[in-house]
Amino acid sequence: MSAPLILHPDRLFPADLTTRSIARRLYAEVASLPIISPHGHTDPSWFSSDALFSDPANLLIVPDHYVFRMLHSQGVPLEALGIARRDGGAVERDPRTIWRLFAKQYHLFRGTPSAMWLNWVFAELFGLEERLSPETADLYYDRIDAALATDAFRPRALMDRLNIEVLTTTENPLDPLEAHQTIRASGWQGRVLTAYRPDPVVDPEFEGFLANLDKLGAITGKDARSWQGYLDAHRDRRAFFKAMGATSTDHGHPTARTADLPFAESESLFARVQSPSVTAADAELFRAQMLTEMARMSTEDGLVMQLHPGSFRNHSRNTLANFGRDKGADIPTQTGYVEGLKPLLDRFGDAPGFTLILFTLDETAYSRELAPLAGFYPCLRLGPAWWFHDSPEGMMRFREQTTETAGFYNMVGFNDDTRAFLSIPARHDVARRIDCSFLARLVAEHRLDEDEAAELAYDLTYRLVKEAYRL
Amino acid sequence: MSAPLILHPDRLFPADLTTRSIARRLYAEVASLPIISPHGHTDPSWFSSDALFSDPANLLIVPDHYVFRMLHSQGVPLEALGIARRDGGAVERDPRTIWRLFAKQYHLFRGTPSAMWLNWVFAELFGLEERLSPETADLYYDRIDAALATDAFRPRALMDRLNIEVLTTTENPLDPLEAHQTIRASGWQGRVLTAYRPDPVVDPEFEGFLANLDKLGAITGKDARSWQGYLDAHRDRRAFFKAMGATSTDHGHPTARTADLPFAESESLFARVQSPSVTAADAELFRAQMLTEMARMSTEDGLVMQLHPGSFRNHSRNTLANFGRDKGADIPTQTGYVEGLKPLLDRFGDAPGFTLILFTLDETAYSRELAPLAGFYPCLRLGPAWWFHDSPEGMMRFREQTTETAGFYNMVGFNDDTRAFLSIPARHDVARRIDCSFLARLVAEHRLDEDEAAELAYDLTYRLVKEAYRL
Amino acid sequence: MSAPLILHPDRLFPADLTTRSIARRLYAEVASLPIISPHGHTDPSWFSSDALFSDPANLLIVPDHYVFRMLHSQGVPLEALGIARRDGGAVERDPRTIWRLFAKQYHLFRGTPSAMWLNWVFAELFGLEERLSPETADLYYDRIDAALATDAFRPRALMDRLNIEVLTTTENPLDPLEAHQTIRASGWQGRVLTAYRPDPVVDPEFEGFLANLDKLGAITGKDARSWQGYLDAHRDRRAFFKAMGATSTDHGHPTARTADLPFAESESLFARVQSPSVTAADAELFRAQMLTEMARMSTEDGLVMQLHPGSFRNHSRNTLANFGRDKGADIPTQTGYVEGLKPLLDRFGDAPGFTLILFTLDETAYSRELAPLAGFYPCLRLGPAWWFHDSPEGMMRFREQTTETAGFYNMVGFNDDTRAFLSIPARHDVARRIDCSFLARLVAEHRLDEDEAAELAYDLTYRLVKEAYRL
Repeated sequence: MSAPLILHPDRLFPADLTTRSIARRLYAEVASLPIISPHGHTDPSWFSSDALFSDPANLLIVPDHYVFRMLHSQGVPLEALGIARRDGGAVERDPRTIWRLFAKQYHLFRGTPSAMWLNWVFAELFGLEERLSPETADLYYDRIDAALATDAFRPRALMDRLNIEVLTTTENPLDPLEAHQTIRASGWQGRVLTAYRPDPVVDPEFEGFLANLDKLGAITGKDARSWQGYLDAHRDRRAFFKAMGATSTDHGHPTARTADLPFAESESLFARVQSPSVTAADAELFRAQMLTEMARMSTEDGLVMQLHPGSFRNHSRNTLANFGRDKGADIPTQTGYVEGLKPLLDRFGDAPGFTLILFTLDETAYSRELAPLAGFYPCLRLGPAWWFHDSPEGMMRFREQTTETAGFYNMVGFNDDTRAFLSIPARHDVARRIDCSFLARLVAEHRLDEDEAAELAYDLTYRLVKEAYRL
Repeated sequence: MSAPLILHPDRLFPADLTTRSIARRLYAEVASLPIISPHGHTDPSWFSSDALFSDPANLLIVPDHYVFRMLHSQGVPLEALGIARRDGGAVERDPRTIWRLFAKQYHLFRGTPSAMWLNWVFAELFGLEERLSPETADLYYDRIDAALATDAFRPRALMDRLNIEVLTTTENPLDPLEAHQTIRASGWQGRVLTAYRPDPVVDPEFEGFLANLDKLGAITGKDARSWQGYLDAHRDRRAFFKAMGATSTDHGHPTARTADLPFAESESLFARVQSPSVTAADAELFRAQMLTEMARMSTEDGLVMQLHPGSFRNHSRNTLANFGRDKGADIPTQTGYVEGLKPLLDRFGDAPGFTLILFTLDETAYSRELAPLAGFYPCLRLGPAWWFHDSPEGMMRFREQTTETAGFYNMVGFNDDTRAFLSIPARHDVARRIDCSFLARLVAEHRLDEDEAAELAYDLTYRLVKEAYRL
Repeated sequence: MSAPLILHPDRLFPADLTTRSIARRLYAEVASLPIISPHGHTDPSWFSSDALFSDPANLLIVPDHYVFRMLHSQGVPLEALGIARRDGGAVERDPRTIWRLFAKQYHLFRGTPSAMWLNWVFAELFGLEERLSPETADLYYDRIDAALATDAFRPRALMDRLNIEVLTTTENPLDPLEAHQTIRASGWQGRVLTAYRPDPVVDPEFEGFLANLDKLGAITGKDARSWQGYLDAHRDRRAFFKAMGATSTDHGHPTARTADLPFAESESLFARVQSPSVTAADAELFRAQMLTEMARMSTEDGLVMQLHPGSFRNHSRNTLANFGRDKGADIPTQTGYVEGLKPLLDRFGDAPGFTLILFTLDETAYSRELAPLAGFYPCLRLGPAWWFHDSPEGMMRFREQTTETAGFYNMVGFNDDTRAFLSIPARHDVARRIDCSFLARLVAEHRLDEDEAAELAYDLTYRLVKEAYRL
């Protein structure tokens, strides 16, 4: 057997030859469309400073929880992968040692999207053709390390090379957006935009909530401890984010619950969530009310609203204690939308110009709740298969379970939602291939004509994303 | 490219040629079997009066919430589609204007069952071959409008042409069944039957419940405000419905909860749900008890019982206020059957001759609850994939997730559940094609022999439906 | 048409020829690997006594609730199938009569895994080639009956013929394990092991719980009515089971709830669950605490822990009253793992050497909860698709919904979980064919290389099972 080809040109297309040839034709038309990335977590300072990345391990392993959680699940201590301990305890510092450990365990990623994304990066960006393994670990390390030292691998150059037309980051209201200001002032033509993610000042259970309110007040000059002042402060920061290029807001809540309380009740609720005796029920109700407030502001300022509920954050006590938040221990929970969204939808469900994009980590909601809701309410659009479901099977289930009720036109195309910058084109490529495979099946089964499928492939890849996010 | 063929003879068959040729053979044997439609919502007065339908828009768009909800979801006001406002406010009245708007938005239905059903009607009944589009809108309108003016499109003639052997409508106990009486007295041979749908006199939260009880008393001469009189009134109306041809009852409840209370407790519960201080919990308990009472009566009179829980009716406050009930805003909710059905099943689960057909809008119940329950209890049968799941992908998931545990013989074939009369054969045709495709895969994978699959295709299309519904 | 071949060599492989030929190649490499059966319910006395089985009906129908529940669901009384009544009432005793009734209804199993397992037994073990039907019922009966009278069909001979390397049974702590002791003393080389299943002394709602505690005390000489003595008694019995070959424990709980109470609280909880006023909430909390205690003991003695929550046992009141437990009326319920497992995982989630294998009957947990949990926690592994999901479609959904997040290496291969001894190879064969079909699709879609798929087929069939269960 010859050396494996780590990136086959027909990858992800259905095996049936009739369907595969339709998929190939559809894909050929969208493969090189520019990438619209309206939702993600790259670091804007990369683009303001345009500095070189340090080394393969610190670029591809240490910051990527998809990668290190899998190794952890098989007994590799996070310390061995260079993840910093909160107590400053010893962790592996040598990037080559970390890389070799990763290479030794690379078989764990068989059949996962991580392997597909990484192989794309290895092959397309670094010209690697052999499979990563203990034997090729050093070859890989050296090749990648050398490339990272070149100007071609500076962030701004990569934006061009990766064919990214728009890249959206996520910042909270307390962020001064210095990097974004620097980018805008620099004359560089790359479109790196921010999005308004207010969780730290909206969630009473967020670490440092009260201090965050005070900072919000200080930044805006409003009395952010009073309900009216707090709302004004949001309006103020939203306007600033919008001026810095934002077209959207982003809300990560434990549930999809919304509320629509009278002003006086909201006011006293806001007082309660600032008191030491705040209850979990009040915190939940406050988050619920704030979703409706954010919707109201969106009807005023036109920012598109995104809601992704249903993650039990930092599930592992030990990992949180030793390594902090966002270390791969966020676990999805059952999530209901029908009762939860009603107050917001009753208020703004058909408000002109308002768009609310819904995400889920609970696939049972696709056909039961999300598609029927999006197939009725003018404001609703469905975000793509996301996070654990941003994978070939996951994306296919999303299409199969939502299209028949919501139609294609209540969708917003693909989000990569990643901080793994180099993998962005890989992720979009998987989405394009899966969409073309799904469409090809509909054509092969005479449920669509091929010209319709071609138009839909373009829409799902490019047009609907720009339209939904107003980019 | 030549003009698209809007109704390909191989539509919905799997692309793999081996499987497709098996599916074609299976389908050929069932394609022209008569339609048994044991559950639906056509208007019996069509068949008693045998009047012409008015125009394309009022036949195909205005009454079909599958159609207008999709346009609404993309921002088309219901007024523009001719949906009447409760306040009598202005809405579009010109059917051709409505039709043109629909034609302009027809791409929204790509990939949805609505497109497949409509294309069947366009091609098979009106001989249209080009795709509906803004360019062909008037051609379509004129062709359909002209046909509707002919005797061939009167309801009774269509019953023959559409090959419908039995068509069941749904009426509530207060309905005098005049249309059904007229039909029976007319000498016409068409079988249009009623079904007993008592929700308006069983659900204390139904609009006008108390007045409905009084009407029930007046019609039956029973004291429908006393528990015993109320039960007697049901028995009386069931007997009348049965005399008018009914073989089944139909129950649409928010949940699948049942109860089996002692007589005295039911009696006092019935008093409470008639009092101004009725609670939501009492209303739910009353509905639960009534399911068991209906089951008891079914063991007496042999009417087959159908239960379809789990729809949050009229979810949109504005749509309900402005346009009324049943305007496409019914959204499925999570539905549990295991705890809920136990009281009824403990009482009548193996009662001789009793049949309870279960439906769901929550696909998670297919493999987890419904197939195991139907695979054990003698009284239980599974209704088909329904409403949002009456679609190629939805029906396929139903077969894949129920067959292995419940077997094929605990199924009741297909229901169209529609008020869109012309689309009935289209819907049954989709079901037959999907069933044959599923069976063909089992044959291709050597999980069934082809002679077994052929027998099953017949059973699922015809025999099991007639048997289950006693038609 | 020629007589059907009841066991086609390509059965269960995908119809697409490219994929099928890959599946055939992968399967050829694992088809004759020895069977590792680490979780099941065969009777160890078969192997200690090595007696002949009595007759076809009492071997293949009467003890198999997969078989008799399906007939019951279609109205066949359990009495007619020879299931003993608790009141000693008359039931059919003639095995040939039972067999003929079964043969007459054999079409009910079309499309179910039972048919596939039974056909394997008929063809591979008894050389039958025609389909079972009323016409062939006696031929079948005579052929099987005659074979069962031969030494080749004694349990120990079958262990060799069926190629079973390890077979694990399940016993509760009160079981003296006499059969296992006899087997070990006999010099026979077959590996028949026990597993520690403590539900009768762990679940306060188990029939006879208090008497069971007393028996546990008597067997171990500990004060099993005191918390410390009770824990010591468990340690004692676990050590005994381990000495008799056990490598695992097995826990069937209504939910996945765990708790991690301070010693004094557990102590008083244990007192409460022994009192007449025990509440359902206390019983649930006690089971929850005991899962964490069992985990603690596993970290001490190295027994692998298995948890399978989510079955509503003995759902039918009449069947329980007339025929007793375990008569096919266990129905799955919705099961959540994220909140429930947190106390146990916070305590032992990364304890060195600890393994907890999770099962589910609620497929919605696959992608939402189980794969993300197993893809993070070092102790967790996923048990295979199980019970109602131990079927071609069920196993395929398991792979499709778990692999992308958890990877292949957080799996433990296949369990047959059966008391139907002869069907064990049939069940493993289905699993091997489905795994090879899934892997073949990944190869055909260029998501894996074929050499990787071959390694994975071996791992899923043999290596991961032995490793996970320490066999």
